[in-house]
Amino acid sequence: MYCVDLNSDMGESFGAYKLGGDEEIIKYVTTANAACGWHAGDPMVMDKVVKMAKERNVVVGAHPGYPDLMGFGRRKMVLSFDEVKNYVKYQIGALHAFTQSYGMKLNHVAPHGAMGNQCQYDEGISTAIVEAVTEFDKDLIIYYCAGAVLGDIAKAAGLRTASEIFADRAYMDDLSLVPRKMEGSVITNEDVAIARCVRMIKEGKVTSINGKELDIKGDTLCVHGDGPKALAFVQRIRETFAKEGIEIKHL
Amino acid sequence: MYCVDLNSDMGESFGAYKLGGDEEIIKYVTTANAACGWHAGDPMVMDKVVKMAKERNVVVGAHPGYPDLMGFGRRKMVLSFDEVKNYVKYQIGALHAFTQSYGMKLNHVAPHGAMGNQCQYDEGISTAIVEAVTEFDKDLIIYYCAGAVLGDIAKAAGLRTASEIFADRAYMDDLSLVPRKMEGSVITNEDVAIARCVRMIKEGKVTSINGKELDIKGDTLCVHGDGPKALAFVQRIRETFAKEGIEIKHL
Amino acid sequence: MYCVDLNSDMGESFGAYKLGGDEEIIKYVTTANAACGWHAGDPMVMDKVVKMAKERNVVVGAHPGYPDLMGFGRRKMVLSFDEVKNYVKYQIGALHAFTQSYGMKLNHVAPHGAMGNQCQYDEGISTAIVEAVTEFDKDLIIYYCAGAVLGDIAKAAGLRTASEIFADRAYMDDLSLVPRKMEGSVITNEDVAIARCVRMIKEGKVTSINGKELDIKGDTLCVHGDGPKALAFVQRIRETFAKEGIEIKHL
Amino acid sequence: MYCVDLNSDMGESFGAYKLGGDEEIIKYVTTANAACGWHAGDPMVMDKVVKMAKERNVVVGAHPGYPDLMGFGRRKMVLSFDEVKNYVKYQIGALHAFTQSYGMKLNHVAPHGAMGNQCQYDEGISTAIVEAVTEFDKDLIIYYCAGAVLGDIAKAAGLRTASEIFADRAYMDDLSLVPRKMEGSVITNEDVAIARCVRMIKEGKVTSINGKELDIKGDTLCVHGDGPKALAFVQRIRETFAKEGIEIKHL
Repeated sequence: MYCVDLNSDMGESFGAYKLGGDEEIIKYVTTANAACGWHAGDPMVMDKVVKMAKERNVVVGAHPGYPDLMGFGRRKMVLSFDEVKNYVKYQIGALHAFTQSYGMKLNHVAPHGAMGNQCQYDEGISTAIVEAVTEFDKDLIIYYCAGAVLGDIAKAAGLRTASEIFADRAYMDDLSLVPRKMEGSVITNEDVAIARCVRMIKEGKVTSINGKELDIKGDTLCVHGDGPKALAFVQRIRETFAKEGIEIKHL
Repeated sequence: MYCVDLNSDMGESFGAYKLGGDEEIIKYVTTANAACGWHAGDPMVMDKVVKMAKERNVVVGAHPGYPDLMGFGRRKMVLSFDEVKNYVKYQIGALHAFTQSYGMKLNHVAPHGAMGNQCQYDEGISTAIVEAVTEFDKDLIIYYCAGAVLGDIAKAAGLRTASEIFADRAYMDDLSLVPRKMEGSVITNEDVAIARCVRMIKEGKVTSINGKELDIKGDTLCVHGDGPKALAFVQRIRETFAKEGIEIKHL
Repeated sequence: MYCVDLNSDMGESFGAYKLGGDEEIIKYVTTANAACGWHAGDPMVMDKVVKMAKERNVVVGAHPGYPDLMGFGRRKMVLSFDEVKNYVKYQIGALHAFTQSYGMKLNHVAPHGAMGNQCQYDEGISTAIVEAVTEFDKDLIIYYCAGAVLGDIAKAAGLRTASEIFADRAYMDDLSLVPRKMEGSVITNEDVAIARCVRMIKEGKVTSINGKELDIKGDTLCVHGDGPKALAFVQRIRETFAKEGIEIKHL
Repeated sequence: MYCVDLNSDMGESFGAYKLGGDEEIIKYVTTANAACGWHAGDPMVMDKVVKMAKERNVVVGAHPGYPDLMGFGRRKMVLSFDEVKNYVKYQIGALHAFTQSYGMKLNHVAPHGAMGNQCQYDEGISTAIVEAVTEFDKDLIIYYCAGAVLGDIAKAAGLRTASEIFADRAYMDDLSLVPRKMEGSVITNEDVAIARCVRMIKEGKVTSINGKELDIKGDTLCVHGDGPKALAFVQRIRETFAKEGIEIKHL
C-alpha cells in the first residue's frame, strides 16, 4: 500500500486582504501549512485556519517566512544565522499558541518562499531552521522540497522529515524546481501531471526537464486551492490516487 | 514574613535600537516582563532576554501590546474583542517559543501600555486577555495593576493573579495611577516612595493624591532600570526591604 | 447646468494582495483617491494607479490613513495633533512623488477610514489635516464628507473644499452616515439611490433615515468598483446624470 | 581655495527609540541625510530634523533605504528594478513634504545601508535610483561613495553628483570601503584620519589598505555624531580644515 500526505499553504490572508480559497481546499487536503504573520497571515487568520483544520481533522504545521509582508516573503534577504533561527522560532511559537488553544498538536515546519527556496542548497539557513525546531520541539516534522539539503540536515539532527513533491512543476536534473520564468516550468497538462505524481509516489522516479531519470521521494504532495480549476484538479488527484491504491493521509 | 516580587519591563529594544538597561536591572529583579515584538522587542531581543533571565534565575512573563511599534504600544487603538484575544495569544505564543527552548516555564502575562491601562476599567479587553490565557495555558499568572478590573475577571475565571504596585507613582482615589500630565503623578522623594512601598506591602494601605486612605494589595512591585539613578533606587529598595523583613522572591 | 465629480478609492492593493477593481472603475470616474502606503497601497501600487489615472485623464488625490495596515486604517487610534499632522504630510508627499513624476498635479486630500470618520466632529484631527495641507501646498482641495467639521475648518483656513456624498448610504439627521451595523444603512434599491443622488446634486436636499429633510452639498460623489454589480451601478449613474443634465467632471 | 561639504546621517530615531545625537552634530555639519521612515525615521522625526536643519542653515537630502526597519536597512534584499525605483521615489517624496513645508529645497539623495553599498557595483540598482530622481526632480544631487558606479550612471544621466569620502575608513584598491570585519577597516588614529582627509580633498589622493596610491574625489565628507568623542573629532576636523584653507560649505 502506498501513502501520501496532501498539503496546501493556507492562512495567507492579511487583515482586509483575502488570498487563497482556504474554506474550499481544506476539504481536500490532510495537512495545512499556516502562515505565521510575517510574510502573510495575522492572528485572526491563524485562529480561523487552525479552527477550520480542527473541524476537518486536518493537521497544521507552521509556514514561517522572511519579515517581508510587502514582498510576500518571496524576496531573498541576507540574514544572519541567529536571525533566521530566532525569526523561525518566533513564528513557530506564535502558531503553536493557536494549535495548543484548540487542543491540537503542531505537526511540522515548512519554510516559505525565498527562505524555502534557499533551503535547497544553503546549509546555514537549513541548520538555523533545524536548530530552531530542535530547541523548541523535537517532535515537529521538517517538510523539505525533495532533494533539498534541509532534509539531510534535519535527518542528521535526528528530526523526522517529509519530502515534498509538486504536482504541477517540472524538475531540473538536480531535483530543484525549474524556475517559473523558464519555459516548461509548469506542467499544464493535467493527465501528465497526475501520472507524474503517481509515478513519483509509487516508483520514486521522475523525469527531469532535460529527460533525465531521477530518484525522488514523495511523502507529501503540495496542492493549491486558488480558484475552481485548482479545486477540480485536486479532486482528480484524489480520484486517481484511490484507483491507484495510494492512500491519502497525514504524516 | 512579608513577600514581594520585583518585576521590570525588559526586551524593549528593537533591531538597531537599544532601549533600557536590561543587563543591569536583571541583577536586581525576580521577574522580567518581556516585550513580544509588536510594540517593542524582536526575536533576537527576546532570545537574549530569556537567556539572561535563565542565567540569573529570573522568571519571564509575556508583555503583549498593541500592533503599534511607532507608538510603542502607548496609543489607544479600538480593536474588536477577537482581535485583542488573538493578538495577545499570538504574542504569548511567540515568547513561549523562547522560554520553552531554554527549558523554562512561561510565568505570567502582563499587558503593556495602552492595553494595560485600559484593563483598569474595560471589561471587554480584560475578558479577551483572560480568554487568550485560559485557552493557551491555565497556569499562567495574570499581572494586573492594583484595583484593575482585569484582576477581578482573571480571578473569576480561575486564573492565578498578581496585583502590581508602583514605587514612584501616586494613586487616585479609585487606585488608578495619577496621569503623568497631572502634577504630583510621580513621587520624586525616594524616602517617601520607599516608605510607601513598605506600607503597601506590610499594611496593604496607601494614601491617595487627595489624602484618602485606600486598601491596596501589592504582590509584585514594578521597578525601572533606565540609567544609574534608577538602578541605585532599586538597590535602596532591596536594602530597605531586607531591614523591614520583606522577602523578595518571584511568584 | 449641474456638475459633479465622480470619485473612487483606488490603489488599495498591497504587495501580493489585490483589492478592488482599479482597472475597471477608472474608466468611469473623474477622480481617484489613492492610498499612500500606510493603511493600504505600496509604491508599486501607487505608481500603477497614478499611471493609469494619467492615461485616462483622471485626477489623483491622496487618501491618507492611520498607520494600521492590519486594520486597513478602519480602527480608531488615539494620536496626538502633531502625529496626525506629520503622518498626513508624509503620505501626501509620498504620493506627490508619483504624480509629479508623471507630470500631473496632485489634486486633493481625502482622509481615509477611521481618520475620515473622525473628521465629522473632531476639530483637532481636522485642524491637523488642514495644517498639513496648508503647509505643504495651499492649492490642494480638501475632500470632506458632507456636514463634516473638516469642511468648515478647511474653508476657514482658506483652502478649497469639496463636499462628498454617497450614492448608496443613508444619512442620520446630522448628515453623518448611518453606521453600517444599523438597519437601513445601505440603500440597496438602485432606483432610489440614483434618485437621491440627483436630488442631492440638483436640489441640495436629502431625506434622513428618520424622514427629516436636510440640506446637503454634493460636489463629489463617491462610487465603488468592486465587482461587476458595482460597475453596472456606476454606468447607470452616468446614464441618468446625462439625461438629468448633470455634467460629470473633476474639480 | 579648496571646498568640502560636511554631511551626517540624521533622523534615524523611530517612535520611542532614540538613535544618534542629531541636536549636537547638526551644529558642525553643512548637510543632513535624513532617513525617510523605511529603515529608520518616522514623520515626527523627519519633521524635527528638517526644522532643526532650517534653523541651522543646514541643507537636507533624502537617505532612502530598504523596507527593513528590523535590520536598519543594512541587510541585502533582492528587489526588482521597479521596486527599487518606486521605493526610492516614495521615500524622497515623503521627505520632500517636510522640506517644502519649511520653505526649503530638497538638496540631494544618498542611498542608505545595504542599498548604498550595492551602488558601488550594481548598475541595476544605481540606474533605478537615478531614474527615480530624474523623474521626480532633475535638480537633486546624487551622493555616491567615491568610486561607485552610481556616480557614473548619475553623471551619464545628466544629474549633478557629489563624491562622498569617509574620515575614519580605510579603502580597498578599488576604492570600496574595507569591510568592517576586516582588520584595519577603521582608522582609529585621529591624526592619521584627518591628514588623510586633507590629502583626499587637496590632492585627490588616498593610500589603500594595501599601500596603493589611488585617485579619489572628495566633494563631501561623512561624519558621525554619536557621542562626545565623535563630536570632538568633528571639531578637530573643522579646526584643521580652517588652517589648511579648506572651506566647509554645502553643495
